[in-house]
Amino acid sequence: MLNITATYTDQYQLAMAQVYFQNGQRETTAVFDYFFRKLPFRNGYAIFAGLENLLEILEDLRFSDSDIDFLKKQEFSEEFIEYLRNFKFRGTIYSAKEGDLVFPTRPVLQVEATMIEAQIIETMLLNILNFQTLIATKASRMRLVAGDRTLLDFGLRRSQGAGGYYASRAAIIGGFNGTSNVIAGKDFEIPVSGTMAHSFIQSYDDELTAFRAFAKGRPHDCVLLVDTYDTLKSGLPHAIKVGKEMEQKGEKLAGIRLDSGDLAYLAKESRKMLDNAGLEYVKIAASNQLDEFVIKSLLEQQAPIDVFGVGTNLVTGSPDGALDGVYKLAESNGKPRLKISENLSKVTIPHKKQVYRLSDSEGHLVGADAMTMRSETRIDRMHDPMESLKSLAVEGCKMEALLHPVMIDGKRTEKPRSLEEISQYAKERLGTLPAEYKRFFNPHIYKVGISSKLKEERENLLNKYKI
Amino acid sequence: MLNITATYTDQYQLAMAQVYFQNGQRETTAVFDYFFRKLPFRNGYAIFAGLENLLEILEDLRFSDSDIDFLKKQEFSEEFIEYLRNFKFRGTIYSAKEGDLVFPTRPVLQVEATMIEAQIIETMLLNILNFQTLIATKASRMRLVAGDRTLLDFGLRRSQGAGGYYASRAAIIGGFNGTSNVIAGKDFEIPVSGTMAHSFIQSYDDELTAFRAFAKGRPHDCVLLVDTYDTLKSGLPHAIKVGKEMEQKGEKLAGIRLDSGDLAYLAKESRKMLDNAGLEYVKIAASNQLDEFVIKSLLEQQAPIDVFGVGTNLVTGSPDGALDGVYKLAESNGKPRLKISENLSKVTIPHKKQVYRLSDSEGHLVGADAMTMRSETRIDRMHDPMESLKSLAVEGCKMEALLHPVMIDGKRTEKPRSLEEISQYAKERLGTLPAEYKRFFNPHIYKVGISSKLKEERENLLNKYKI
Repeated sequence: MLNITATYTDQYQLAMAQVYFQNGQRETTAVFDYFFRKLPFRNGYAIFAGLENLLEILEDLRFSDSDIDFLKKQEFSEEFIEYLRNFKFRGTIYSAKEGDLVFPTRPVLQVEATMIEAQIIETMLLNILNFQTLIATKASRMRLVAGDRTLLDFGLRRSQGAGGYYASRAAIIGGFNGTSNVIAGKDFEIPVSGTMAHSFIQSYDDELTAFRAFAKGRPHDCVLLVDTYDTLKSGLPHAIKVGKEMEQKGEKLAGIRLDSGDLAYLAKESRKMLDNAGLEYVKIAASNQLDEFVIKSLLEQQAPIDVFGVGTNLVTGSPDGALDGVYKLAESNGKPRLKISENLSKVTIPHKKQVYRLSDSEGHLVGADAMTMRSETRIDRMHDPMESLKSLAVEGCKMEALLHPVMIDGKRTEKPRSLEEISQYAKERLGTLPAEYKRFFNPHIYKVGISSKLKEERENLLNKYKI
Repeated sequence: MLNITATYTDQYQLAMAQVYFQNGQRETTAVFDYFFRKLPFRNGYAIFAGLENLLEILEDLRFSDSDIDFLKKQEFSEEFIEYLRNFKFRGTIYSAKEGDLVFPTRPVLQVEATMIEAQIIETMLLNILNFQTLIATKASRMRLVAGDRTLLDFGLRRSQGAGGYYASRAAIIGGFNGTSNVIAGKDFEIPVSGTMAHSFIQSYDDELTAFRAFAKGRPHDCVLLVDTYDTLKSGLPHAIKVGKEMEQKGEKLAGIRLDSGDLAYLAKESRKMLDNAGLEYVKIAASNQLDEFVIKSLLEQQAPIDVFGVGTNLVTGSPDGALDGVYKLAESNGKPRLKISENLSKVTIPHKKQVYRLSDSEGHLVGADAMTMRSETRIDRMHDPMESLKSLAVEGCKMEALLHPVMIDGKRTEKPRSLEEISQYAKERLGTLPAEYKRFFNPHIYKVGISSKLKEERENLLNKYKI
C-alpha cells in the first residue's frame, strides 16, 4: 500500500547532503545510533518493531523520476541531482532483533554508511521504528493484562491516516491475535476478523430480522452486535432466539458483541442469559474505548469477556502518541563524535558499539544491558551513563550480544522473518523478563550501563569539547 | 505515495456487504452522516480537512487483483468476489467545504449510496477525515497564538508511520507556512524547508568549520544550528563570525536555530548578540517539543523568535491523538433510521439533512449551526438535540447552507481545489468566527441545533423503537 521513495525524508537531509557532496565529502563515513530516551506508557520495557519494513524499504530505496523532477525545482545543483538519481543505500546496519526487548539510551540499531546516505534515510528510519515500537509496546501491555483472551485491533478508522497500516502489524508483535484492517491483513498475513455494525441492524425494520439475515449469510462466523436498541431487553433475547434457530440447522452462533453501556455488568448478565438458554459456547466480545486500564478493570470485576476489540487507544499509542527515538552521530570518518548538552542525559555516547544482555550463571536475566566498544567481548563492571559514580559489578555474568549485522553494504544478510516468527520471538523474550519489570504500575527500572572503556573514551571526548 | 485500494477497510464491512449481496439487497440504499461528538483540544471549533484526498481516492477506488486474490482465500462466495472485482463507488456526497469550521453533532458530510458501497468506504472515509481534521485544528490553535510568525512542520520523524504524510498537508490548512516533509511537499505543493542537524556540526572537527562549510554550500538559505556545544559561548559567536564573512561576499545569513535549553532566555541573548554585531536581519528559529502552550508562553515572555519548528505535538495531535468522528445511518431504503442508546448524546439524527450557519442581519455569525430536513429552507427556531427543553429563536437570521454536493453518482462535481485555496478559505472562515469562540482557554460553546421538523421526526421514531 505504501510506495515509499527517498523523498520520504526531511528537507534538511538533502540540504546537508548537498553540502557534503559539494565539499568533496561524498565518501565521508558515519556511524549513527538509533535509540530512545524514555520508555512509553511508564512501562518497564519496550518491544522493538518495524525492522523488517525498514530493511525491505531500504533495499530498494530510490528517488523516483517524479522525485527528481520535484527536486530540480528546488535549489539543488545539477551534479547533486544526478547523484540523487543514482542514489542507493549501500550501508551496513547492526540491529537488535525485531521483537526483542529494548531499553532507553542503549542503541537499538546502528547505521554505518556514508554521511550522505545515513542522513537521507534518517527520517524514514525514525518514522518507521519509533511508531511500530510504540504500538508493539502498547499492545504488549494489553496482552499482559488480558491473559489468554483474544485481542483484536479495531483501530483503522481512528488511526492517524495511513499510520493504521503499520499499527495493525505492530499490534501483532505486541501480542494481539488479529485485526479488522483488511489491507494490513493482506500485506502482513495477519488474521482478519470482524463482526457487524449498528448500521446493519438499523437498515432492517427490526433487530430480529437483521440478526436472522446475518446468521443466514455468515453461518460459520456469526457475531451479533446486541446494543443497537437495548442490550438486555432486545439484543440478547433476539441473539438467543437466533442462536437456538441456528442450532436447529446444525450451526452455532459464534458470539455476541457489547459496544456500549457498563461492559462488566452487561457481560455478566449476558453470560447468564446465554448460559440459561444452553448457549454456553457463545463467546462474548466487547469494544468501546478500551485500553489496558479498562481491560484490567473489567477482568478484576470478573467480567466474562472472551474477546476484546481495541481501537483508538491501541493504534494511536494513547496517551503518549510518539516514542522519542533519536538518531545521533557516534562516529564520523573513523573518529568518535559527541553531542554535548547542558542536560547530561542528552550527551551522546561515541563509537561503534555492541550491547550485551546480562544473565546469571543459571541463565536468568539480571535486569541489565551493557553497552561496550564493539571490539570488547568481556566486561567486569558497567557504569551509569548519566551518574558517573554509579556502577555495577557484572563479572561472571553471561553476556548475550544483542546487535546483529542485518544489512551489509546495502544487502540484507538474512531472509525476511514472518510476522508470526517475530511475534513468537517477542513472546519468548518477554517470557525471560522477570515479573517486576512487567509490573503494570511502577515497574522496576531495567539498568543500562556502559563499559569502563566506553566511559573513559566518552569522558576524554567531553573534556576535549568542553568550553 | 499512498496506493489506497478498497481493502483499506474493516473486515466487517465486507462481511456485511456479502450478507446484503446474498439477501438480494444489492441495491438497498443508505444515507450516512459523518460527524464527531467532541471538539479536540478543548478548542472552540474544528477545521474540516481531508475532503480533497477522500474524493480523489473515491473516484478511482477499486479492489486490485492482489486484493481479489486475498479475498478469495477468505470465506466469501464466488458471486460476491465477482461483484467486488467490478466494485466502484457510484454514490453521492454532500459535504462541508474543506477548510470550513465544523462543530460537534452536525453532519460534516453525508453519503448517499447503496448500503454496500457506503459500508465499504466507511473506514477509509473516517480514517482520512478524522485525522486531517484533528491536525488542521491543532495547527490552527498554534497559528492563533503565533500571530504572523512563521510556523513550520518538522514532525515526520515522530509521526505515526505514514500518518505524517497527511499531517503535513492538514497543518497547512490549519495555518502552517511550510514543512520539512519532502514527499508531502512534492505531492501537495507545500513549501519545503529545513536547516541542519547536530550531526552535521559533529561531523566536522569544530563548529566554525562546519558553519563555514554550510554557508558555502547554502549561501541563499543558511540557517545555522547553534546548540551543539554551547549556544551562547560557541554557537552564537561562530554564527556571527560566519554571518560577517557572508556579508563580505555580498551574502546574508538567513537565521540561527535554537533547539535546546531555555528558549526564551537564549532567544533574547541571541537577539542582542546578533544585533550588536549588525546582524539585525538574521532571523531566530526555535524548535524542541513545541506546542501551542509553549509558543504562547514564549511570546508572552517576549522571546524574539521569528520561526517556530513544531514536530511531535503537531503531527500526532497530542494530547488527543484522534478525533472521535463516526459514520451513522440516517436513512435506508428511503426510510429514516435511528440508533438508540442509553446515552442520549449517542442517539442519532435521522433523514437527509442540510446544515445552515446563522448570521444576523449585518452578516455577523450568531454562533449557531442548525440542522434541518434537506427540504427545509427556512426555520424559525432550533432545538438542542440532547436537551429537549432548550431552544433558540432564529427567525430573521440569514442562513448559509453548508453542505454542498461534491460528488454525484461517483463523479466529482467540481475540479480539485489546491491546498493553497483551501488554506486561504480556512483562514477566511476562521476570520468570521467571533473572538470568544477562538479563546485559548474555555472558549464559548458554539450552538448546534435541529429544526422543529427534524425534532418531531426524531421523536416519532424514538417512540416507535422504545422498548
